[in-house]
Amino acid sequence: MRQWIAGAVGAACMVVTGMAAAQELLVEKKVFELPSFTTQSGRTLKNVKVGWESYGTLNADKSNAVLICHFFSGNSHAAGKYAAADAAPGYWDAIIGPGKAIDTNTYFVLSSDTLVNLNTGDPKTTTTGPASINPDTGKPYALDFPVVTVRDFIEVQKALVESLGIRKLALVAGPSMGSLQTYEWAATYPEMVAKAMPVIGVAEADAMLIAWLDVWAAPILVDPNWNNGDYYGRTPPNAGLAKALTAVTLQANHAEWANGTFGRRPAKEGEEPGKALANRFQVQSILDSAGEARAKVSDANHFLYLIKANQLFAAGGTSLKDGLAKIKAPVLLITQPKDLVFTADAVARTAEGLKQAGGNLTQVFIQGTRGHLDGVISMKQAEGAIREFLEK
Amino acid sequence: MRQWIAGAVGAACMVVTGMAAAQELLVEKKVFELPSFTTQSGRTLKNVKVGWESYGTLNADKSNAVLICHFFSGNSHAAGKYAAADAAPGYWDAIIGPGKAIDTNTYFVLSSDTLVNLNTGDPKTTTTGPASINPDTGKPYALDFPVVTVRDFIEVQKALVESLGIRKLALVAGPSMGSLQTYEWAATYPEMVAKAMPVIGVAEADAMLIAWLDVWAAPILVDPNWNNGDYYGRTPPNAGLAKALTAVTLQANHAEWANGTFGRRPAKEGEEPGKALANRFQVQSILDSAGEARAKVSDANHFLYLIKANQLFAAGGTSLKDGLAKIKAPVLLITQPKDLVFTADAVARTAEGLKQAGGNLTQVFIQGTRGHLDGVISMKQAEGAIREFLEK
Repeated sequence: MRQWIAGAVGAACMVVTGMAAAQELLVEKKVFELPSFTTQSGRTLKNVKVGWESYGTLNADKSNAVLICHFFSGNSHAAGKYAAADAAPGYWDAIIGPGKAIDTNTYFVLSSDTLVNLNTGDPKTTTTGPASINPDTGKPYALDFPVVTVRDFIEVQKALVESLGIRKLALVAGPSMGSLQTYEWAATYPEMVAKAMPVIGVAEADAMLIAWLDVWAAPILVDPNWNNGDYYGRTPPNAGLAKALTAVTLQANHAEWANGTFGRRPAKEGEEPGKALANRFQVQSILDSAGEARAKVSDANHFLYLIKANQLFAAGGTSLKDGLAKIKAPVLLITQPKDLVFTADAVARTAEGLKQAGGNLTQVFIQGTRGHLDGVISMKQAEGAIREFLEK
Repeated sequence: MRQWIAGAVGAACMVVTGMAAAQELLVEKKVFELPSFTTQSGRTLKNVKVGWESYGTLNADKSNAVLICHFFSGNSHAAGKYAAADAAPGYWDAIIGPGKAIDTNTYFVLSSDTLVNLNTGDPKTTTTGPASINPDTGKPYALDFPVVTVRDFIEVQKALVESLGIRKLALVAGPSMGSLQTYEWAATYPEMVAKAMPVIGVAEADAMLIAWLDVWAAPILVDPNWNNGDYYGRTPPNAGLAKALTAVTLQANHAEWANGTFGRRPAKEGEEPGKALANRFQVQSILDSAGEARAKVSDANHFLYLIKANQLFAAGGTSLKDGLAKIKAPVLLITQPKDLVFTADAVARTAEGLKQAGGNLTQVFIQGTRGHLDGVISMKQAEGAIREFLEK
């Protein structure tokens, strides 16, 4: 997916103002460590580490902090570049930076890698999960790692935020799985969240989403190299992981993109798909290549634990209705009606529930040909709404 | 999927009239054999066999024949029962039978198993595909079987129809992959098709559908028992095939069904999904069980060849526009707006193309909570439209 994002975010960068471009964000990755962390499932883990980064400056009364939560296959690189020569900035750079909708001249924006983050092979990601060494055994946890939840993700973020002396967040926001974390924050710690901006997501995983997530995970479970999660030091199940990431990439997109970009062109000139079982259409080879590239820097067990966390998600820990009733923050809900992961119907249930619970809801719909992914790459459309929401 | 179909079709059966019930169809499976068949890809196969069945009586001038084409995971059992004690009749029994919309007191209705039919383990299915013995080698073809297309499927049907002395079909109809065959018939042999009734389908596989079909196939390709298609006489890749069939079952359904039927109930009382990685929600276990049950009577290579045939599909063999321009028959197009396989947008492109080509099109939309599957199990809704279309 990264290559699609890179292209589209790159294009978005061209339209920033000259002044903003002159103030281009240069960011560094930091690591936050908790000597001890107890999961919601009751297991205590030692030396939990997550990567994080920040943009802008925390003010004296520590009232200007914004927390950005990342999507399923993302990490904490929400904005800026590590070096001017980087091919692309962080995924929401179109709305985070000096003079941008979430203005780093005003706000101190921070973002952290979640537990069980997918990108274990990326040197700019730090996470704790099945691929991490268990200090008690000296070996990777593998499936001995406890089940973790979106609530666990935000508990680690809360510890990070509190370590900086921040008592209240001016805004919590994020796309996709980042929106799940946003809802969880607003429902679980309403006194700590001044405003919430969930993007392309809902406040509870429904049965259909639970089932789709299983479709994503299926190729890993069938891959013989997965070996019930015990593959560290051996050949990892990258064939299965690549197919899993291909499914993610497809569902995060939309037919308008697939049909408009690829049509029925063969993958290779002269190798007509009808001539041999192995001959493919371009859409097949491009998606498979994207999945294979992603698999090389990802971990299959982390993928499965992320799937589980998303399947278990219900904001506030009980039910959609109860969770939404706990939210006190004004909510700016930004979604894409063509989203195939968090569908318009599912989003409407969350929005309706929030209204029925008396919540302060503003809804914005973004457009595009990418479906779900427009919530990552087409956010510039919402900049006016975001500015207005933050100024209120 | 069969169990969902069985339940729903069973329910539909209850509402047939007493008279129709008294005339319940009893059918027998027959086998049609071609000593030699040359595929579109240019390979000549010996002893091609397919199963078929028929309902009603062919009239003297052989002008009352209706051909029903089956869906991806189906076979030629479109209506009636083999024995009164059968748990369920054929899949379109709600609209095919004495006094029903496609009235077997008037029409001679026939249906045949396609090449590379999925249900190789079902004694009531006869097909020729990778699992068949190659008469030249005495061994299963496996991946030496040639690529076959929807055009090949209808060429076998045409040979069957002509063997009965039928020169023109009063109607060609079918759901899902059956609608692809219907479009192919109408575009390729317009002089042989008086009327066409494609249900829940389109006249060309677009890039998005091609990509989704790859998601379905992925778990088979990763299963070590698939062994590049060489598994006959050994353990078959049923783990991968089961996951593939689970994906088919899910996408052939809809969120309203999944959420309404399962909600967030655990698969087993007392085994909360959050307590262990292996604990599941009911929707997960039911879908997996359905996939596993289907895998036991299905063949993984046949699944892959069916995927390929669907990906290659363009009615008439060239492009959507050209294919639709070849169709002369009036078309009754029946679809479900919530269909996740052949989406409303894709259906609209086919319908628009047909209108632009000057085609005679009547569109009917059916409703329900099952999405795609409503085109199999909820067809009674369309009986008035079908009667009217046939009487015109």
